[in-house]
Amino acid sequence: MAKWVLTFGDGRAEGRADMRDLLGGKGANLAEMANIGLPVPPGFTITSDVCTYFYANGKSYPDALDAQVKAGLEHVEKITGRRFGDAQNPLLVSVRSGSRASMPGMMDTILNLGLNDETVEGLAANADDRRFAYDSYRRFIQMYSNVVLGLDHHVFEDLLEQAKDRRGVVEDTQLDVEDLGKLVAIYKAKVEKETGSPFPQAPLEQLWGAIGAVFSSWMNPRAITYRRLNAIPESWGTAVNVQAMVFGNMGETSATGVAFTRDPSTGEKTLYGEFLVNAQGEDVVAGIRTPQPITEAARIAGGVAAPSLEMRMPEVFREFVAVAERLERHYGDMQDLEFTVERGKLWMLQARNGKRTTKAALKVAVDLAAEGVLTREQAVLRIDPASLDQLLHPTIDPKAERKVIATGLPASPGAAQGEIVFSSEAAEAAVSGSSGRSVILVRVETSPEDIHGMHVAAGILTTRGGMTSHAAVVARGMGKPCVSGAGALRIDEKGGTLTVAGRTYRAGDVITIDGSTGQVLDGPVAMVQPELSGDFNTLMGWADEISRMEVRANAETAEDARAAREFGAKGIGLCRTEHMFFDEDRIVAVREMILADDESGRRKALAKLLPYQRSDFRELFKIMQGLPVTIRLLDPPLHEFLPHGDRAIAEVAEAMGVDAEKLKRRAEELHEFNPMLGFRGCRLAIAFPEIAEMQARAIFEAAIEAGRETGAPVHCEVMVPLIVARADFDFVKERIDAVARELEADGASLSYQVGTMIELPRAALRAGEIAESAEFFSFGTNDLTQTALGISRDDAAPFLSHYVAKGLLPADPFTTIDRDGVGELVAIGVERGRATQPKLKLGICGEHGGDPASIAFCEELGLDYVSCSPFRVPIARLAAAQAAIRNAAKQGEPAV
Amino acid sequence: MAKWVLTFGDGRAEGRADMRDLLGGKGANLAEMANIGLPVPPGFTITSDVCTYFYANGKSYPDALDAQVKAGLEHVEKITGRRFGDAQNPLLVSVRSGSRASMPGMMDTILNLGLNDETVEGLAANADDRRFAYDSYRRFIQMYSNVVLGLDHHVFEDLLEQAKDRRGVVEDTQLDVEDLGKLVAIYKAKVEKETGSPFPQAPLEQLWGAIGAVFSSWMNPRAITYRRLNAIPESWGTAVNVQAMVFGNMGETSATGVAFTRDPSTGEKTLYGEFLVNAQGEDVVAGIRTPQPITEAARIAGGVAAPSLEMRMPEVFREFVAVAERLERHYGDMQDLEFTVERGKLWMLQARNGKRTTKAALKVAVDLAAEGVLTREQAVLRIDPASLDQLLHPTIDPKAERKVIATGLPASPGAAQGEIVFSSEAAEAAVSGSSGRSVILVRVETSPEDIHGMHVAAGILTTRGGMTSHAAVVARGMGKPCVSGAGALRIDEKGGTLTVAGRTYRAGDVITIDGSTGQVLDGPVAMVQPELSGDFNTLMGWADEISRMEVRANAETAEDARAAREFGAKGIGLCRTEHMFFDEDRIVAVREMILADDESGRRKALAKLLPYQRSDFRELFKIMQGLPVTIRLLDPPLHEFLPHGDRAIAEVAEAMGVDAEKLKRRAEELHEFNPMLGFRGCRLAIAFPEIAEMQARAIFEAAIEAGRETGAPVHCEVMVPLIVARADFDFVKERIDAVARELEADGASLSYQVGTMIELPRAALRAGEIAESAEFFSFGTNDLTQTALGISRDDAAPFLSHYVAKGLLPADPFTTIDRDGVGELVAIGVERGRATQPKLKLGICGEHGGDPASIAFCEELGLDYVSCSPFRVPIARLAAAQAAIRNAAKQGEPAV
Repeated sequence: MAKWVLTFGDGRAEGRADMRDLLGGKGANLAEMANIGLPVPPGFTITSDVCTYFYANGKSYPDALDAQVKAGLEHVEKITGRRFGDAQNPLLVSVRSGSRASMPGMMDTILNLGLNDETVEGLAANADDRRFAYDSYRRFIQMYSNVVLGLDHHVFEDLLEQAKDRRGVVEDTQLDVEDLGKLVAIYKAKVEKETGSPFPQAPLEQLWGAIGAVFSSWMNPRAITYRRLNAIPESWGTAVNVQAMVFGNMGETSATGVAFTRDPSTGEKTLYGEFLVNAQGEDVVAGIRTPQPITEAARIAGGVAAPSLEMRMPEVFREFVAVAERLERHYGDMQDLEFTVERGKLWMLQARNGKRTTKAALKVAVDLAAEGVLTREQAVLRIDPASLDQLLHPTIDPKAERKVIATGLPASPGAAQGEIVFSSEAAEAAVSGSSGRSVILVRVETSPEDIHGMHVAAGILTTRGGMTSHAAVVARGMGKPCVSGAGALRIDEKGGTLTVAGRTYRAGDVITIDGSTGQVLDGPVAMVQPELSGDFNTLMGWADEISRMEVRANAETAEDARAAREFGAKGIGLCRTEHMFFDEDRIVAVREMILADDESGRRKALAKLLPYQRSDFRELFKIMQGLPVTIRLLDPPLHEFLPHGDRAIAEVAEAMGVDAEKLKRRAEELHEFNPMLGFRGCRLAIAFPEIAEMQARAIFEAAIEAGRETGAPVHCEVMVPLIVARADFDFVKERIDAVARELEADGASLSYQVGTMIELPRAALRAGEIAESAEFFSFGTNDLTQTALGISRDDAAPFLSHYVAKGLLPADPFTTIDRDGVGELVAIGVERGRATQPKLKLGICGEHGGDPASIAFCEELGLDYVSCSPFRVPIARLAAAQAAIRNAAKQGEPAV
Repeated sequence: MAKWVLTFGDGRAEGRADMRDLLGGKGANLAEMANIGLPVPPGFTITSDVCTYFYANGKSYPDALDAQVKAGLEHVEKITGRRFGDAQNPLLVSVRSGSRASMPGMMDTILNLGLNDETVEGLAANADDRRFAYDSYRRFIQMYSNVVLGLDHHVFEDLLEQAKDRRGVVEDTQLDVEDLGKLVAIYKAKVEKETGSPFPQAPLEQLWGAIGAVFSSWMNPRAITYRRLNAIPESWGTAVNVQAMVFGNMGETSATGVAFTRDPSTGEKTLYGEFLVNAQGEDVVAGIRTPQPITEAARIAGGVAAPSLEMRMPEVFREFVAVAERLERHYGDMQDLEFTVERGKLWMLQARNGKRTTKAALKVAVDLAAEGVLTREQAVLRIDPASLDQLLHPTIDPKAERKVIATGLPASPGAAQGEIVFSSEAAEAAVSGSSGRSVILVRVETSPEDIHGMHVAAGILTTRGGMTSHAAVVARGMGKPCVSGAGALRIDEKGGTLTVAGRTYRAGDVITIDGSTGQVLDGPVAMVQPELSGDFNTLMGWADEISRMEVRANAETAEDARAAREFGAKGIGLCRTEHMFFDEDRIVAVREMILADDESGRRKALAKLLPYQRSDFRELFKIMQGLPVTIRLLDPPLHEFLPHGDRAIAEVAEAMGVDAEKLKRRAEELHEFNPMLGFRGCRLAIAFPEIAEMQARAIFEAAIEAGRETGAPVHCEVMVPLIVARADFDFVKERIDAVARELEADGASLSYQVGTMIELPRAALRAGEIAESAEFFSFGTNDLTQTALGISRDDAAPFLSHYVAKGLLPADPFTTIDRDGVGELVAIGVERGRATQPKLKLGICGEHGGDPASIAFCEELGLDYVSCSPFRVPIARLAAAQAAIRNAAKQGEPAV
């Protein structure tokens, strides 16, 4: 027969910690604590399978459940020596939901269940405290009526207020036992009036009502929303925990408290917690009374007068310390504990891994490894890679007040503050002055022409565009804070104002942006500077030892390349050469090339660009000395380099000494309806091979020079973007090889490979042929996502939000790789490419290269490296190590 | 040992007509004629395998070739009784290239090979004509030196001119034998001077030189270009035909001629040809002398004085008629013949299927089937589906003079002429007048707002955009001639002028466009109106009996639907509902919906659209009575319905009574960088389900009304565009089903299916799940091509041309489906969809649905139908029949 109910208590349990899927987090931990002999109030857990059954069978229960719940109650009765519904010695229970993942959206707890007009007297007698018993009964009716019967809790609060008014008192505690007895009667009458039935007196009826309420709450709107936001599948379901009540409010020898086994903000190994005498759990949280420190040391350090638990209940304290140490070793992690002392006896109510700051998490993991509690692999698995972001960027002081004026998307982490500027020119002007001002570049959206402005700004704020808009991608690449798509802001560029909710900011006004939350704040706010601890370096070292994949960085400037090396990148996986074209000196030559009437005109203009590109590459090669550098040929459509709008065109034409009409006509000719699917990538090299030839020459000559200067030979990887077949790749590769042959004929010795981006569905499908001549593949999953799903990332915000909100896609596919669609294309590319060339070097250089879930997928596919923005390199290193550990474990598992 | 050389002559041959791949077209036909006992000058063919060997082995020959060529020569010597190089009785040969496909780019023929200073005397003696012999020698040196030795032919023409000058004569024929003897000496001296070696005297050396020249010519630039333009693989190679010379210029009993077995312009069964007495083949073509008709009937009909072949050489004529009839029956097709009469003896030099007009092709095929020469299947296979276009549209009179002022892309077939108008408004104004003027709408490019102008225009001309630009697609759908992307034209909209090559046209000036060639012509030009013959209907009837797939049409207007039925469509495969939104009455409501602040505002505006949509659908259902109609929900992004530019916005705002600023802001909000990948398709229905609900209601209510009016129940297929998963499809399907349930609850009885477009790579990959709830798939291969290849069709022209020109893609993927990329996605979609739902209805509704090569692919995949524009329905019907025949044949073939 199916086992729907598992019991625990009295030093053993039918469940275990690893049965979280079935028992939920709370139920599994209660069982585990019972199993290892800790003092846990006895109880039982109704499994999440019942929840699944409940929804699959029109909200009904399995036949066997009734008997199993009764057996569970008998188990508790036997241990406690009390009986459910017994007038003399009543068993009271709490009923709590508990799902696999922590889910605050779920049902509230019901305490004191089992109380009725009879048992309340038994409780009074047992506790020797009638007021306590009636207050418990009053609270139970209120809680149960609200949670199970669906009455608004204001109804009861109003009745309580009226009772206090009648008595002329202010505090609940001022009501005496008679007042409470009357209030119970009033509550019951109200319930009957509102629901048409009397308040249930039969404890079993109460219990089944509570169980049904827990299962029903799995589908309440709050829970549904929470699951959606946290990507928790509906199919998981919830378990129900029924547990004997213990009371921390049975007088001066009773107490309740919470504790962490280590300091959650620093990770220091010191018991850290608070308690209250004669109180219930909610009183600690409610903040009416001030809790006292648990340890003497903390009491002294905090200058607290009230005694510590260590002083007040030394026996209990000693037992608690032992339990805490035991649990930490048992779980191999810092614990967050809840306990109650009932008349001098310690009861453990909850033990779970404690939340902590990233800094603390690193220290705890490294310390636990040092203490021999964890292996290095386990320590590496303890850290959430995404949390490292906190360490790498300045953040807003948690204690500072935040005057939020708008919220956009958290496009690039970290906080920044500065004066508002509305153009890149203004940004440069402000920063280049002697005063060294800090500015926030505020734009509707950015374009490649804004690169120089973004470079000097402390942060970027846009009113349009998503997580993968130009501003977001470039800012992340630069490691600069960015808030994008703050749609509530209205920019009047001409007027030079930023308006939000009736308030107007002008250029020069100071704002702060928090790229980790998407908030835009009024004025300057206190900041905390990042600091990389020794623990960080220790753990990252372990991660690197464990990883199979390498982590490279996407970088094109010397600054980015240096940051990449500092953060531990093992090379550059993507150098976007076009970013080198926007400098003032260069853009003129670029535009001359675009305006040239024929090949010889283009070659003339390209000759001017050659020295710039060569020197950029030489610098990169020198910084990355000893590490591979992958350089992508020119990718964006040429119109991105031309000015837009009549005024800008006129200015540029004037400056270049060309006819404005001609410039305008060329811009119009180059205009595209869908530039993402336009004249870009290798299509430029195919139409104008001289561009690819110039770039190849610049790369190779730079490699020669850098090799000569550093004495270390340079290995460069030339990458052809946007191919659809072997033929177009070969066309460009031939041009690159021809340049190399020419230089080699002059005596140069070159070490290079020519490979390609796999960023279009057709390229993935044709990977077998492409691998016949490409020497490496780099999966460009940004464009692959755009094309496979037909979603322009710059235009996605208005509809992709609906997709994610309505659960039509599991996650934003630009953040985490879409395994089922894009992922299959990548897998096809890997499989076919390696079928042709088993040792084919494979990497990924889209934004996904810095996303832990996507990195796990890359590990499963057997890629050789991931490449991401420099500031995500540590995250990727850690994620790569975790992926290696988990994938190895998965491989080791017996096949299903 | 490999057989590199195959001989023919004297009533037998080693080759056959079906050995075209090995022998080339010419060689295979010569062998076939020899085999069936026709009088063919003996010879041999060096196979195309030698060409393959030649290029694979550094331009060398297989070892065995030398001996085999010698054996071939001996074979010819034996039959002719002459010897190669013999001074008394020399064998002379012609050397011709001949590949699998007809290839005009290849090497010129060399005649009279084997002549030298000795053999020329033998020829003179044999022919009893020294002048003839020296003229032949002179021509041989000239031809050989040019073709084999690479000397410019002007060199020899100059020397010939000088010789005539010296003699004071004008015509070549005025030179006597001594003049020619001297000229031969001068020629030989010239060759020695230019090449450093004497003109080769050894016949074998001459022969090997010619063979090498044929093989080398396979890679000459003309041949490469021709192969590229005609998609002929380089790997095919060419064969070499060496054949005994026969002379039509050996006096008055010799002649040469060409003939068709039927009239190539009408298909009438009558021998149709011309000949010249005492002449060589090139003289017939050169046009110096007027050739005479072959039959008496033709001579009388043409009022020609010179005697016919029938009169002049009655014996030869009778033999020729018998040969012609035999060949036609043998090949089962009209033949194009070349013959020579040498001193009263008939020799056949060539027999091949004759080129003909489409009208003639239909008559020939139907007649041959009636004569029992062909089966109906064979007759159906005889017609090139694409050629039917000629019959369906007005065309420019072939006799008319064409003053071409520009050439664009042949975007939609047929010719049209009319006054230039530069806007849709002007087009409507001009046409709506009492005069009923004909106009050509001339635009830089068209947008959905131009639909009404395109509707009234006789033809459309754009200066930008490709074969699949908006103008091209819509024009083809309407069956209207269109020339797109005529980049040489410059439009000044403000000035109202069209300028090309210094000439300026104004609104009202008449031009003619030829959408079949892409030409733009000055002024009006004489036209020929289309006419569908009985033969057409007969053959199409046969085609429909043979086809497995059905052909539907893409249509949304009543006019298109009627045309579709007339052309034999078996339903509507794609009704694009948005095309119904642009009418003046409706666009206002559409815009109100877009501007609405909330759902209730949108519902109010949609309620106004409902009656329009319902009545449109009712009309369609009535016209298509008894046939299925597939209706696609709203697809384009909403910004397509808003005005662009400040002036237009101001006008519309004024007309709508809304704030221009608001309208402008909304237009800005909706602006997209890549609309193709933007907020469109089912994404609209997901964000605004009320739109899909209104459309579903309009469809179902129209079906009910049409069913009531016609008494025949309507089956409608509602199609959800642009899905990426089952989840988004289900979301929209639920809304549609809900509307249906509501109407059914009111007593209506509906017959409908909800299916989806598979037009994104992800949808193809997820087809297995999607087929769990979709009731049919329609492959939208336009968008699938755009996304799989990352090519925006509206922007493709500037780079796709490079791809096709450089052979990087086999064909324009928007014209013929890209089997290797897009095709694999479609195949995956078919396979996974049918794995879930074996009877899943599958169709295609992209432009490929009207392309014969793509239709063949659809047949191979087992699709149920193709859908194309109404004017391509006959083409698709024929192509579907051919595909069915060929695919069945392929299935029947033993597996390789």
